[in-house]
Amino acid sequence: MAGSLLQKQRMQYKPQVPVWLSEDVCFETVGGSQAPENLRPLFPHTFETPVYRLRKGRGAARKVTIGVVFSGGQAAGGHNVIAGLFDSGAQLIGFLGGPQGIIDNQTKALLQIDAYRNQGGFDLLGSGRTKIETQEQLAASLKACTAHRLDGLVIIGGDDSNTNAALLAEYFLQHGCKTVVVGVPKTIDGDLRSSDIEISFGFDSACKTYSEIIGNIARDALSAKKYYHFIKLMGRSASHIALECALQTQPNLTLIGEERRPLKEIVRQIAELITRRAELGKNYGVVLIPEGLIEFVPELTDLPHEKDPHGNIEVSKIQTEKLIIDLVKKELGGRKWNALDHFLGYEGRSCLPTNFDANYCYALGKLAFFAVRESLTGVICSIQHLKESPQKWQFKMIPIVQLMHLEWRLGKEKPVIRKTLVDLKGSAYLKFSSQRKSWELEDLYQMPGPIQFFGDPALTDSVPISLM
Amino acid sequence: MAGSLLQKQRMQYKPQVPVWLSEDVCFETVGGSQAPENLRPLFPHTFETPVYRLRKGRGAARKVTIGVVFSGGQAAGGHNVIAGLFDSGAQLIGFLGGPQGIIDNQTKALLQIDAYRNQGGFDLLGSGRTKIETQEQLAASLKACTAHRLDGLVIIGGDDSNTNAALLAEYFLQHGCKTVVVGVPKTIDGDLRSSDIEISFGFDSACKTYSEIIGNIARDALSAKKYYHFIKLMGRSASHIALECALQTQPNLTLIGEERRPLKEIVRQIAELITRRAELGKNYGVVLIPEGLIEFVPELTDLPHEKDPHGNIEVSKIQTEKLIIDLVKKELGGRKWNALDHFLGYEGRSCLPTNFDANYCYALGKLAFFAVRESLTGVICSIQHLKESPQKWQFKMIPIVQLMHLEWRLGKEKPVIRKTLVDLKGSAYLKFSSQRKSWELEDLYQMPGPIQFFGDPALTDSVPISLM
Repeated sequence: MAGSLLQKQRMQYKPQVPVWLSEDVCFETVGGSQAPENLRPLFPHTFETPVYRLRKGRGAARKVTIGVVFSGGQAAGGHNVIAGLFDSGAQLIGFLGGPQGIIDNQTKALLQIDAYRNQGGFDLLGSGRTKIETQEQLAASLKACTAHRLDGLVIIGGDDSNTNAALLAEYFLQHGCKTVVVGVPKTIDGDLRSSDIEISFGFDSACKTYSEIIGNIARDALSAKKYYHFIKLMGRSASHIALECALQTQPNLTLIGEERRPLKEIVRQIAELITRRAELGKNYGVVLIPEGLIEFVPELTDLPHEKDPHGNIEVSKIQTEKLIIDLVKKELGGRKWNALDHFLGYEGRSCLPTNFDANYCYALGKLAFFAVRESLTGVICSIQHLKESPQKWQFKMIPIVQLMHLEWRLGKEKPVIRKTLVDLKGSAYLKFSSQRKSWELEDLYQMPGPIQFFGDPALTDSVPISLM
Repeated sequence: MAGSLLQKQRMQYKPQVPVWLSEDVCFETVGGSQAPENLRPLFPHTFETPVYRLRKGRGAARKVTIGVVFSGGQAAGGHNVIAGLFDSGAQLIGFLGGPQGIIDNQTKALLQIDAYRNQGGFDLLGSGRTKIETQEQLAASLKACTAHRLDGLVIIGGDDSNTNAALLAEYFLQHGCKTVVVGVPKTIDGDLRSSDIEISFGFDSACKTYSEIIGNIARDALSAKKYYHFIKLMGRSASHIALECALQTQPNLTLIGEERRPLKEIVRQIAELITRRAELGKNYGVVLIPEGLIEFVPELTDLPHEKDPHGNIEVSKIQTEKLIIDLVKKELGGRKWNALDHFLGYEGRSCLPTNFDANYCYALGKLAFFAVRESLTGVICSIQHLKESPQKWQFKMIPIVQLMHLEWRLGKEKPVIRKTLVDLKGSAYLKFSSQRKSWELEDLYQMPGPIQFFGDPALTDSVPISLM
């Protein structure tokens, strides 16, 4: 891949991480796992894994070999996780094309990664959505990790991929394999989130890219004064992306799936908005629709929909935005108004990571390295106080099983990581719901503009509003 | 409209224009109009208008009142034209909602414009696509300009709007109205272009915004390795935007309408690309499709299509990208491949203008002011040497009639400004055509990334590649 001038300048960026991460560090236990008891039989070797906190202190002095894999959809910053591992001194082996690369033992030695520093995409290794589930797949994975004498396998992925990491960790222990398995929380969707994992990486870059575009479209609406723009935003079930983008851009209306409102009510609300704005002479507006809305709308979820191999409805294939426009048109009868639909998804998954994601990912890579060096397994990287400057960040390893519960998928009860939905009592939602009324009729659109990499740190180093 | 932090910072930006523009300036004649002789009868009062060049020297010392209007689709930088007029000391009256605002005499006195400096959109005044054509419309416009005792009317618009400016100038002279009419070359499409008008404003910002998104999508394609992204780009007839974006991002294939290739050949080429890439194990790619392609493809132009009030086919309503995907699928028969389609348009028309567009527009506003002060009419602003630093720019006023010819529109022969198509012998196209072969199978995607406003001038002040 060739590189633009900005790509080349970004290669030179030095991610900010706490100074003490370069010193000698070790882990201490800070509490037992709080995993649900019904998972104990499924995870006999890892159920009791405690929570670990990274602190200054003498760590293991050993060289480690680490396998690393991207799993699932792209998220900006993934390459910096690898840069963090690389700069920690690990010998790195990359599995190609996602988890299938582990099963098939398709690898590439990572000897030089400079061209990928602070760059978007997952193209250094590629990615994939294979799930390592069957006995054959588990055995093949163990074989590959053993063949490469891996001290650790770092899985950079979302909820399903980290569920997989937990299963692999358990399987490896059970079969006497010395490779530890460490997860890194990735997903633009923002649904891999808890009190321990404040946000997954990629969310910030994706939301800022979408918000740039939404702001541009809003200003166009305000200028042309003749179109309603219905903008669907990627992000599976949860409406975290729509919520963050709403806070960034202040559109006239944002649907939040978690409000679980009947379709009829949603349609009526949009129709009323259009009518009331028309009375003010405003025949334009911006409406944000989360991709996952459909999962929360009772009238729609009963319909037969395609599911992906993980049992998730393939919501991106359902054109909710067009469906809603049609229903609103019916509701409004003969009234003349113009609707345009947009879908934002691929535009923001592989962009150049923001400083926040670049720093966060680099630190996650460092943390994953330490976890492998200290032989922790079945754990996921957790960095806290992310809204503060990187010097104040705190580092933990959380047992993945603690994030899991049993869920019915494709007719079977399976241990999976709980998707974290938008908390309707959380501060981000409350901030949104306290302001949104004023956004309906007044045009308080904000244009966050394109992500800035140089200049005022208030711009270049800003964190998601949802974190504040 | 509220403002984001970046919007507020951009309000402070001081556009770069030649130092001597702040000194006393005047115009000198540098050559007669080269308008086609068959336009003489239609423009008896303005046909002989010469070309004027701005230079240092004693200008008219008088206060002027100027009416200003946005006409047609949004283009980033429009507000800076107004800032340039404002800072020159003109008393400014804005017509609201486009040319219809002149006819209806809907105005707003522009006493304070700071919140709009270097901002996207046309929302200070709104815009519209009404054409001032009938005797009633022309008379109403004269009445409005006379009522406000306007010394000049500045029309910020594309080819159709500047055609309108020429008609108004002629009509005003014919009816003894003292208001001069001055055009400013706006349009993201880039088709208002000649040896005199190097580029219209808004093109740079739109292309950079689209190129950011295309680069992001290309990196996603390269990472996921499973999708062909067909990206349609706004831009009416001419393929200037597609060409510029191709040079910026180096996608696998870019269709250029002006090549006038049969549909069959286009479909076969894409099918072959997919087949040959599949042989290399590459089942992904990026294809750019100009919105106006359809006007050049003989098999498609015969179909009945909607036309807008100016007689243009409403190409944005025809889903060329989906049509082509379907035809390629047929051509490839049973082969399994995945296509996704995108349309980029509204995302880039109203964005924060790049420094290039901010500077260019501010200078255009200054130039339009001088033209009014010196009572030039039926002329359009022309700034040359745009690829050089603003200090080297040269300023002219070109008689609009020189850019016009007679064209059949809706069954009538009408004087209109020639749309400038991509020159297949021009340096931009030749640069593209000399490189594109290597982009087909190799993945030489470039990610220009988001527009930067701070830092290295090589990034912040870059000009369109098509200008180089």
